[in-house]
Amino acid sequence: MTLRIDRDYALELDHADELARFRSEFVIDDPDLIYLDGNSLGRLPKRSAERLREAVEHEWGSRLIRGWNEGWFTLPQRVGAKIAQLLGARTDEVIAADSTSVNFFKLVVAALRARPTRSKIITDDLNFPSDVYLLQGALELLGNRHHLHVVRSADGLAIPTDQLRAAMDDDTALVTLTHTAFKSGYVYDMAAITEAAQRAGALMLWDVSHSIGALPLELSKCKVDLAVGCTYKYLNGGPGAPAFVSVRKDLQDELLSPIWGWFGQRGQFDFQLQYQPAQGMARWQAGTPNILSLAAVEPALDLLLEAGLDRLRAKSVAQSEYLIGLWEELLKPIGVTLNSPRDYRQRGSHVSLGHVEALRIDRALIEDLNVIPDFRYPDNLRLGLAPIYTSFVEIHEAVMRLRRVIVNRLYEKYPSERPEVT
Amino acid sequence: MTLRIDRDYALELDHADELARFRSEFVIDDPDLIYLDGNSLGRLPKRSAERLREAVEHEWGSRLIRGWNEGWFTLPQRVGAKIAQLLGARTDEVIAADSTSVNFFKLVVAALRARPTRSKIITDDLNFPSDVYLLQGALELLGNRHHLHVVRSADGLAIPTDQLRAAMDDDTALVTLTHTAFKSGYVYDMAAITEAAQRAGALMLWDVSHSIGALPLELSKCKVDLAVGCTYKYLNGGPGAPAFVSVRKDLQDELLSPIWGWFGQRGQFDFQLQYQPAQGMARWQAGTPNILSLAAVEPALDLLLEAGLDRLRAKSVAQSEYLIGLWEELLKPIGVTLNSPRDYRQRGSHVSLGHVEALRIDRALIEDLNVIPDFRYPDNLRLGLAPIYTSFVEIHEAVMRLRRVIVNRLYEKYPSERPEVT
Repeated sequence: MTLRIDRDYALELDHADELARFRSEFVIDDPDLIYLDGNSLGRLPKRSAERLREAVEHEWGSRLIRGWNEGWFTLPQRVGAKIAQLLGARTDEVIAADSTSVNFFKLVVAALRARPTRSKIITDDLNFPSDVYLLQGALELLGNRHHLHVVRSADGLAIPTDQLRAAMDDDTALVTLTHTAFKSGYVYDMAAITEAAQRAGALMLWDVSHSIGALPLELSKCKVDLAVGCTYKYLNGGPGAPAFVSVRKDLQDELLSPIWGWFGQRGQFDFQLQYQPAQGMARWQAGTPNILSLAAVEPALDLLLEAGLDRLRAKSVAQSEYLIGLWEELLKPIGVTLNSPRDYRQRGSHVSLGHVEALRIDRALIEDLNVIPDFRYPDNLRLGLAPIYTSFVEIHEAVMRLRRVIVNRLYEKYPSERPEVT
Repeated sequence: MTLRIDRDYALELDHADELARFRSEFVIDDPDLIYLDGNSLGRLPKRSAERLREAVEHEWGSRLIRGWNEGWFTLPQRVGAKIAQLLGARTDEVIAADSTSVNFFKLVVAALRARPTRSKIITDDLNFPSDVYLLQGALELLGNRHHLHVVRSADGLAIPTDQLRAAMDDDTALVTLTHTAFKSGYVYDMAAITEAAQRAGALMLWDVSHSIGALPLELSKCKVDLAVGCTYKYLNGGPGAPAFVSVRKDLQDELLSPIWGWFGQRGQFDFQLQYQPAQGMARWQAGTPNILSLAAVEPALDLLLEAGLDRLRAKSVAQSEYLIGLWEELLKPIGVTLNSPRDYRQRGSHVSLGHVEALRIDRALIEDLNVIPDFRYPDNLRLGLAPIYTSFVEIHEAVMRLRRVIVNRLYEKYPSERPEVT
């Protein structure tokens, strides 16, 4: 790619973008705002707002309890089947339920109980901390009969597959990683790591929260055992929208959630007092599913399926390469580092840039320059590229504004300490 | 009460009802529909629809990720504090989170681990089955070191406090009951049972799903240890809306959820890899809270607080007494039984009527008579009275239509077998 750093070039790229029309599917009411945090919370699809209005006013307001028989009961499966298409999994291998954390807990406990003679759990220090906490909690809950082996990254950017493979042995019950690392954006080799884990006799659990919707996944092809993820990042499902859980078909009879709620019960309206797990993915539900939020998620998934993951990935790669090209020309010379892998094959859809003043720069960008990235401790500015709505000209403008903040030291009016939450 | 069975009397009662104005706060677009299932899914408050629109379009659509710092982070506590007022608990003793099932699981596991030398868990067969399943799952998870003692009701209607008390001993770790029984509407003596459980050295966990919003609760006064409940019944929070969890202040440091998610972590944005539980109720959160649903719940709670629980309870009692009076005159003679306690002090806000053809009657009422009660196996027609919007004339009309279905055998066109879900 022959990089040009002028704005016209970005406009040309947008003009040639076959996905450009999808941008108008989202609510964008401040054209000056550059939103690069779709990897934390995706933008609002217009269809979701409309669908939610219908679900609230017609289904809840008018149909009331009848809504359950008119589509609500099957909504977790229906949403799950669409997520399955984005995962490269079978439609009967996914269900929408609860939060990522709760689903991760269910799968970890189920997996450890399915490997009762093994004591080692492998993860790494690039994993999203919540997953590590949940592992620690599960271990304590199960009587500290297991130990957690946390593989350490040498550079904070990536962990070579061989390093993970070397940790696996015949005592390993479970290997669990976040497929796209939340800080660096490093993407693991799902096929190779899953195969290695299974060869060691362990189960493999992927958290795909930072991947799904941004790049094609191939759970079936990689024979992945277990997966969880959220719907509020690249899936644009809304703040705190329901998560999903996936269990490979041939493990579905064997594995059992530890949370035996009535939506996981076979024949739940028989109201029998002895739990009998439902067949298929239904047993991974616990309580009553959140209908309004699920309703909002569904049309957001349709948009991604319409755009197509291969095209979204192609655009995402073009955009992150473009961003890194601009970084090289305009930001690297003024002290900004690249905290993501340089090789696009190892990179998801966000790019982390490092600067010693990243915390204050982040604040200046948000409060004074109308650019929203996010900050991740200690020095990362994460720039999330959501190919379904992010434009090339936004990337260009973000780099220009970021350069202005640094060159003119516009961040100096902000304190160096962390605000309460970021 | 001198009962008159004419419609004018119902109109007079409505005219005298000091809460009547609250009915107009709800979306009621079919004035002929008699909705008596607010104990399963409450009606849509107009304010909730409006608030949800604002949360979607302004907060998510325009403010995007900034929404977290502009109110979302504290929403579970804010909603929890309002629920606390309805529970008669301290505002720092309640948080909105997850589903009732997931919260119940957390509390059960935490409670059993806080009583490590005791092996008995007491519940009864009037409990909502989901709670029993969750207990069974928790027991298996903890290695079957405990046993579940299910106290059996002699008549399916109620369980005398003495019968429960007799089951408690110095091996009892936990007593857990649903405060208003989901079938019969029987209301337990919260003060006496909690006191007995604690005297035995056990922890007491109440599921108040079928009570909250319909009658005043006094968690603090009764020194209740633990409670859970949902927000989609009398709280009118919407289908599958988030649930809540309550832990008495002086137990909050001692008890720990087994699900160690990042929203329960102290300083969650430090992203440290070692779990440290947050102080107070925050530790009972796991993953990212569902913001849109919580936003819809809040104004629904405000409505109940405005109406006042004492007034709501007074109206609920007047309405259930009126319904039972009509039953006595008009339905009992044609074979309908009362499957709820006759004494209002032992009755929540729904009344169960029994009939051998209840399943088919329920269907005829819904499909042909525009009345929505619900059916509960084997022969219960549950009529839920939500005093904030149910009118006396609706109760009158429901009894008239029910009588018509039975007298004219309008149910005979429907099959006797159960539909897939009800």
